[in-house]
Formats: sequence, C-alpha cells, structure tokens
Amino acid sequence: MHKEIIKDIGEKELIRRIAKYMPANQASDDCAFVENKRQDLLINTDLMVENTHFNHKIISPRDIGWKAVTANYSDLISSGCMEFIGINIGLVLTPSTEWEWVQELYEGFSEALNNFGGSILGGDCSRGENKIISITAIGLQSRLKLRRNACKPGEILLTTGIHGLSKLGLLLKTNKIIKEDLNLSEKLINLSMNAFCRPKPKYNVLKTILHSSEFFLEREIGCTDSSDGFYQAIFDLSKESKCKAVIDYQKIPKNNAWPNGKKWDQFYFFGGEDYELLISLPRNWANKLIEMDEEVTEIGYFIEGSPNVEIKNYPKKYNLDNNSYSHF
Amino acid sequence: MHKEIIKDIGEKELIRRIAKYMPANQASDDCAFVENKRQDLLINTDLMVENTHFNHKIISPRDIGWKAVTANYSDLISSGCMEFIGINIGLVLTPSTEWEWVQELYEGFSEALNNFGGSILGGDCSRGENKIISITAIGLQSRLKLRRNACKPGEILLTTGIHGLSKLGLLLKTNKIIKEDLNLSEKLINLSMNAFCRPKPKYNVLKTILHSSEFFLEREIGCTDSSDGFYQAIFDLSKESKCKAVIDYQKIPKNNAWPNGKKWDQFYFFGGEDYELLISLPRNWANKLIEMDEEVTEIGYFIEGSPNVEIKNYPKKYNLDNNSYSHF
Repeated sequence: MHKEIIKDIGEKELIRRIAKYMPANQASDDCAFVENKRQDLLINTDLMVENTHFNHKIISPRDIGWKAVTANYSDLISSGCMEFIGINIGLVLTPSTEWEWVQELYEGFSEALNNFGGSILGGDCSRGENKIISITAIGLQSRLKLRRNACKPGEILLTTGIHGLSKLGLLLKTNKIIKEDLNLSEKLINLSMNAFCRPKPKYNVLKTILHSSEFFLEREIGCTDSSDGFYQAIFDLSKESKCKAVIDYQKIPKNNAWPNGKKWDQFYFFGGEDYELLISLPRNWANKLIEMDEEVTEIGYFIEGSPNVEIKNYPKKYNLDNNSYSHF
Repeated sequence: MHKEIIKDIGEKELIRRIAKYMPANQASDDCAFVENKRQDLLINTDLMVENTHFNHKIISPRDIGWKAVTANYSDLISSGCMEFIGINIGLVLTPSTEWEWVQELYEGFSEALNNFGGSILGGDCSRGENKIISITAIGLQSRLKLRRNACKPGEILLTTGIHGLSKLGLLLKTNKIIKEDLNLSEKLINLSMNAFCRPKPKYNVLKTILHSSEFFLEREIGCTDSSDGFYQAIFDLSKESKCKAVIDYQKIPKNNAWPNGKKWDQFYFFGGEDYELLISLPRNWANKLIEMDEEVTEIGYFIEGSPNVEIKNYPKKYNLDNNSYSHF
C-alpha cells in the first residue's frame, strides 16, 4: 500500500491537517490566545528525541503522543497544577516521515488531553534529521503549591506508588531482559510495558492531599515527581530543601512479583521515567493522606543535616551504586 | 586550545551552567511559576533546526540566540503583546557541541531578553543528531488585539518597513549572491546581513498604534508579521479575514539601493524572515499612524471579494511567480 510521506504532502498541507486537532478558534494566528483573569500559571517544557528517548522498535507513535503529554503534565502536577490549559508543540520531522505516523502521534496527544484536560494551543513544525517532539505545557497553579524546596525537617516522606516498572518495560522492549529467561510473571510484564508506554501521572492524589488537609490557606508543600528516577527525586528534594532525607528500605513498596537482588534495586532506584509523586508532609497530615489513599506509602522522613539521602535497613551485600541517567 | 564539549561536561553540569541564565527563584523546580492575576496570555512556539534554519557557516550562536527570541517575540507582538513574560527553551545538542557554543547562544538569548523584556522561565535539554532550539514565548495580551482575521473591507493596508533584506542577507552569507558581481552598495549589504542575523521586531509601533487611536476600548485590528514573507503575510490576512487585498506595487517602500528586476521582486515578495508588521486600519486611524511614525507606509487596501492578493501597477514584463518557502 502506498503511504503518504511528509515530503510529498508539503508544509502547508501538513499544518492544515495538524490544525484539525486544535480548537477552531486557535488556528488562524501564530500565537495562542489564553483567557486568564483568575490564577497564576505553571509552565513546563519536555523534549522527546528519536534515538535518545524513543525509536520505532520500542514504542508506537500513539504511545509517544500519550507519553509526551502525560510526562509534561506530571511535572505540572508535581508543582500543584489541578487544571490544564494545554500544550504548544514543536514538531521536527524527516521528509520521509509517513503522514500516518504524524496522525497517530496527534491521536495520542488528543487521547491524553481528553483524559486530563487542556487542548493543543499551537506550535511550529520543521524539517530535521531525526524526529523531535518539544512540548510546552501550561496549567493553572492551584492553592496547593508543591515545590522541591519546601520539605521541612521532621516531615514524613511519602510515595504515591511503586518504582522501577518503566525501566523494566524498556529493558523488555529492547530485549535487554528476556522474559522467558527470568520467569517473570505475565502480570508484572504487562504492568511494566504499560508503565513505559502509557504512564499515568498522579493527578487524583492532589485532590486527596487537599481534602486531607486541615489548612484552608494557600501553602507550600515539598514535592517532586520521579521522572528522573526514585533516588534522584528524593535527592532533589533534599538538595533544594537543604535538609537530609532518611528512607527505610524495608518500607519501600514493591510489586509482589518484583525480584530481589542488587540489579533489581538498581532498576528500582535509578530506572527513571516513573511518574509517581514524592511528597513531604507533617505527621498528622501524612497519616490522614495514607488513610484516604491506599496507594500512598510512608517511606521515610526529613531531618536537619547536609543534603543527602540515607537508606536505612539496606541489605549490605547489595551495595547500591548511584548510576543515575545522563543523556550525554 | 582545548575546548570543553558537552559529552565531557555531562547533563547535570550543563543544566547547572544553563540555570545561571535564569532568575534564581525559577531554577529549583521543573515547572516555571508565573504570577499572573491581571491579563490574558499570548503563547508562541518557534523551532530553529540546524541545517534547516541555520548552520555554523552563516550565523554565530550569539546571533542564533538573539534571532530565536526576537522571531518568537515578533509573533507575540503581531498579536498585540506589549509585555513579555519570558521563554521556555527546549535545547537539543550533539555530544560534541562545545560549551562555548552553548554559552554564546545563551548570551544571545539574554541580550534579546534584556532589550525587549521577559526572562528564561525554564526548559529541557537532550542529546540529538543535530542542534535544535525550540522556544515557547509567553506574553500578556494588551487591549490592542491584533488578529489575522480582523481586516475589514474598506480598511487601509500598512507596512511598518521594507522587505527582502533578510533574504538578501542569507544569499550573501551563503555566497549565492556575490557582492562584487552585483556592485551592491556597502550600506545595503550591511543592512541585509544585519536583517538576517539580528532582526528587530516592531515593538514600538504598537504604542504608536494605541496613541494614534481615537478609541479607548479594547478592539480587534487586522495584523500579522511578515516572518513567512511579505506576500504570504498579506495572503494570510486576506484568507483569514475572508476579503481581498489590493496592493499598489508603486507604493511598496524599497531600500534606495535595492536593484530593479524580477529576481529582486521575488526576494522582496517571497524572501521571508522579515519581521515587519502588516496592519489593516480604517482610513483616519491609518493617516494618523503614518503621521506619527515615518516608517509606516500605506501600500493598499481591503475590499469585499474572495481571499486573494491583487498587485496593481506591477510591471508586466516581470511576471511574478509565487514560490513561497516550504521546509519540506
């Protein structure tokens, strides 16, 4: 079957087709117009680069579209965004890109936007040597101001879920782990593939944090998401809040079928592309939140001290190496 | 001399160095926080891709930085932005990029921001196969709502300046035009090089439009910038406003030293990367604006009719071809 490629379609037709995914009132000017007389804004940019973040062997364009939006929204959520305005898309394509690929990508964007809110506000597209998706997402700042630098000594450290799944998904997709060799459960495999391709940012927990609060005034709470990895997230909280994080290895929640051993701990601690929240709350509030959301788990606390992460009760034989990810 | 490259610096150090160009309060979270209880917003994304929009032979990283910000701001201005909040930067680099290149780029960003306002709000960086700068700029919507679809039959079409210079600059830079062969004036050559490397968006004219107005209420005005070329800008106004543009070739302002002939008209009409404004105003307002700003010139008008651009008094012998630019 003949497939249309971007070179044959040309730039104008490409832009016309892409504009169909936008609200009709946004398409006639270069700039997006956003009505806003109410709230402060949160803005976040994330890049997805072919052969760095994705390739056609491991993820479909529809999943890339979903992931590009949700990864971005996870950052907004981790700053306290509860209402999304939308996204601007910078799209770089090779001339031989099939239109179908672009269409599937935009279907993925739309699916994520339909799930979480917001619309495509605008963007730009250009030719390049590999595919790149640069998304800038904009949302409203709720009265829950979540910030990396707002953790306080004495507060409890919570996680909204388990880590390492996305890394396992990637390793399975790239055949660096062969499922038959390891006798992994089918359920864990599916969960991991899905965590890699279809991350679900922890939007709902923000409402529960608000509902579990005794305060009704605007206040800052220590929080970040774990997109750069579980360990890195806690380290960033500790560094920006200028205090020490202590976590208890025995309290860290894992999938029932997650194997033991140093290698698996490395995936868990340094895997990255998890989109859980790490939250720091006073004791009472933490207890209330745990009571209201069964996925939220207490894993440690903050104390006065130099920025650092201490892992208590860690099996000495494993000797965890910090090998966090760098793109370069 | 040994030059530091990004691969040796690593991602964390790169981000740390880049963060120095941001306001101190923005650097600790992924999201940018923008305080805004006042006005509606304008948002615009522009891509600059190595080997598509630039290469090291024709433009310095400092000029790329300047141009990336000002091209973006020109779009905001052309929608009626009179106050800039800032930019989010998606930066893709090859591992062998020299740090000095990145530093010069950020010096260029800063220079433009210092000139026009706004700051670096945030961004993301990643490894890729060529350099890409994806900038999303955010500004406030003034009460002058400039829109492509707001031109009305009977209104006068104005330009804030001359066109074609940037194209000539590019042709000179790429040796597709040899200055000695054509006996071009040194002044025109410098002006063109500068138009290509250091575009100046027409920010000040917005104030003059407001001051020349008899209205004090918010209203929509037909306007776009000419970044996609002089002809394309007028065509877009005509198309989005659903009326016909008539321009008088004899009235179009040219540089005194600009040569005559079909080739030079092609550069003028279809060259692109001009950052003038094309504005549609009622007769009295247009006269007032021309009186107050000597660079503003009347070049035609809009009438009822199918979207199209009619060029009156065009020398028949030249027979202008519409060959507007496509990136693919």
